[in-house]
Amino acid sequence: MKILKVCLGSRSYNILIGRRILRDIDKYIKGLNIGIDAFVIANRTTNRLFGYSLARILKNSGFSVRTEEVPDNEKSKSQEVALRLISRITKYDVKKRLFIIALGGGVVGDLAGFIASIYKRGIPYIQVPTTLLAQVDSAIGGKTAIDLEGGKNLVGAFYQPRLVLSDIDFLSTLNKRQLISGLAEVIKYAVIKDPKLFRHLEKQYLKILKLNKDSLEYIVYNCSKIKARIVEQDEKETKGLRTILNFGHTIGHAIEAAAGYKTYTHGEAIAIGMIAASRISCKLNILDGSIVSKIEDLISRVGLPTRIDKLNLSGVLEAFYHDKKFIHGRNRLVLPKRIGQVIIYEDVPIKLIKEVLINSAA
Amino acid sequence: MKILKVCLGSRSYNILIGRRILRDIDKYIKGLNIGIDAFVIANRTTNRLFGYSLARILKNSGFSVRTEEVPDNEKSKSQEVALRLISRITKYDVKKRLFIIALGGGVVGDLAGFIASIYKRGIPYIQVPTTLLAQVDSAIGGKTAIDLEGGKNLVGAFYQPRLVLSDIDFLSTLNKRQLISGLAEVIKYAVIKDPKLFRHLEKQYLKILKLNKDSLEYIVYNCSKIKARIVEQDEKETKGLRTILNFGHTIGHAIEAAAGYKTYTHGEAIAIGMIAASRISCKLNILDGSIVSKIEDLISRVGLPTRIDKLNLSGVLEAFYHDKKFIHGRNRLVLPKRIGQVIIYEDVPIKLIKEVLINSAA
Repeated sequence: MKILKVCLGSRSYNILIGRRILRDIDKYIKGLNIGIDAFVIANRTTNRLFGYSLARILKNSGFSVRTEEVPDNEKSKSQEVALRLISRITKYDVKKRLFIIALGGGVVGDLAGFIASIYKRGIPYIQVPTTLLAQVDSAIGGKTAIDLEGGKNLVGAFYQPRLVLSDIDFLSTLNKRQLISGLAEVIKYAVIKDPKLFRHLEKQYLKILKLNKDSLEYIVYNCSKIKARIVEQDEKETKGLRTILNFGHTIGHAIEAAAGYKTYTHGEAIAIGMIAASRISCKLNILDGSIVSKIEDLISRVGLPTRIDKLNLSGVLEAFYHDKKFIHGRNRLVLPKRIGQVIIYEDVPIKLIKEVLINSAA
Repeated sequence: MKILKVCLGSRSYNILIGRRILRDIDKYIKGLNIGIDAFVIANRTTNRLFGYSLARILKNSGFSVRTEEVPDNEKSKSQEVALRLISRITKYDVKKRLFIIALGGGVVGDLAGFIASIYKRGIPYIQVPTTLLAQVDSAIGGKTAIDLEGGKNLVGAFYQPRLVLSDIDFLSTLNKRQLISGLAEVIKYAVIKDPKLFRHLEKQYLKILKLNKDSLEYIVYNCSKIKARIVEQDEKETKGLRTILNFGHTIGHAIEAAAGYKTYTHGEAIAIGMIAASRISCKLNILDGSIVSKIEDLISRVGLPTRIDKLNLSGVLEAFYHDKKFIHGRNRLVLPKRIGQVIIYEDVPIKLIKEVLINSAA
């Protein structure tokens, strides 16, 4: 097992990465001195796959455990689900020293973390990410939120977990599309910070797609380390450093939104977003054309889409026209300079963004 | 004008205390560099009395201002009101660098602060407390919350304001009962930390009741200073130091709750709570009987109740019987040792608490 420390003063915590580490979660939690009453938030799938074992392990060790399932989709990040869970927590919370465990992917992690941040002005919580995307990205760094009608992640908090436990064995249960979507974030880390990781992915992608545990552990560890170091420097995204994590995301989010969060997974949308950003970077003479091809090749080889569906193109362009951030040229894009280094570019002309998107439509 | 700094590292801020200082609020806000788009949360009364001037001052200085009124009672600290305000903020928040101003008493401050803490994972906010209670207590220290069905202040956050502006002239608009309720918190500060303030109150209470500005400024400044120093040492109430601010509150809250938050204001309930705690302290040989009389005398002279209404006594006793914290003797009371010093006493026998309450019933 590898241990990564996220150093944030009194809010510091460890990320544990390894195989078959869930079975010792009771010991890790006891070491934190956060109480013995666990409220587990899972979805149906993660509860069936790992929730029953988690509850058994904790109960055998003297913890009290209450588990609540939420639907396995983004709709769980709603005020209704959050309020329902808080009401359940309130009933459970009698003479308790309560903490929350988030057992699932990004949706469960964001929701559970936000609830932990506001319930009684903050109680401890633990991230047990079960997807590749959550292990390498969303479970680390304390960004929590739910969606409201007015927008995704409209209310939330920066609220750090007390522990992140990334058991590599969880990843065997992912379907191909979930795994591949997570790889989009992995490629993101490689492009923004880690040429060695990029080369590893180029060479080992077949092993990864076959769920080779050593390769998965390697990528989870290296991505977690990059994320941890960035979060340490810019915990609350006030210094612009955390911005580089948005490589592929500005255009990716527009694509997801225009497709109504249906056609593309988050990873698929940001894959297209990363290619668009790379091409824009090339047009602006920041990035060499050969590197654009390397990025595009890797994205394509792991099975991610490289081109936006024609059916969705007009919607995306429409979205850009209505997004004031783009119309008024007040956008900020993260553009690669080389593999392992990006720059933040302000005010990319919307014409250029459109041109790149149109040329890349399938 | 007096300036008190609350030192909390990157979350430090100033408390400004003085007469006619609202008129310069534009300058103070500009100094913070938090944007030029103000979303003011007020109630009908505070908006009519000060909101229009506030908006005019800010607009004349180049700010954009949007004001929303909430009902003037505790019901505004609800999920419905919070979500409605967030929806309004979202509509207003286009190309904005938004901050929130809380213009009102404790209810408006708690609600506005909580919204500021969660909207887009936290935006800046400013407390402009208009009641004595808010100026000396609730506007300082970053405790924000709303009520849910499961309990008062059930969800919230520790989230510090960027500025507290306490204009003493606001206090002229308070009715007698509001002013006197605020004085209960002032007496609390004197008993827990400040013998000089206690003597001042004994001598000057008539002046204060007549709204003498110098006396009011003196008490707002000294109470704010005590609160600021305690918050600096225990920002998130994790070290037990902030607990002493609960003098009179444990029993006071039970009295408020038993009376359905109708018979007594918060200040009136904690006045009775402070007397009960002082008598308990005397019975436990911690406090001299002559000091109990001094505390009771001062509370009585400013016009606060010293005895619990017979009609409400049985409800309070009932509440104690159902409160696990009391039944199992797991309570913690703040008990005076002398004027200016309190101790935290664990496991006060419920029999003693009841005896004291029964003996003090009117």
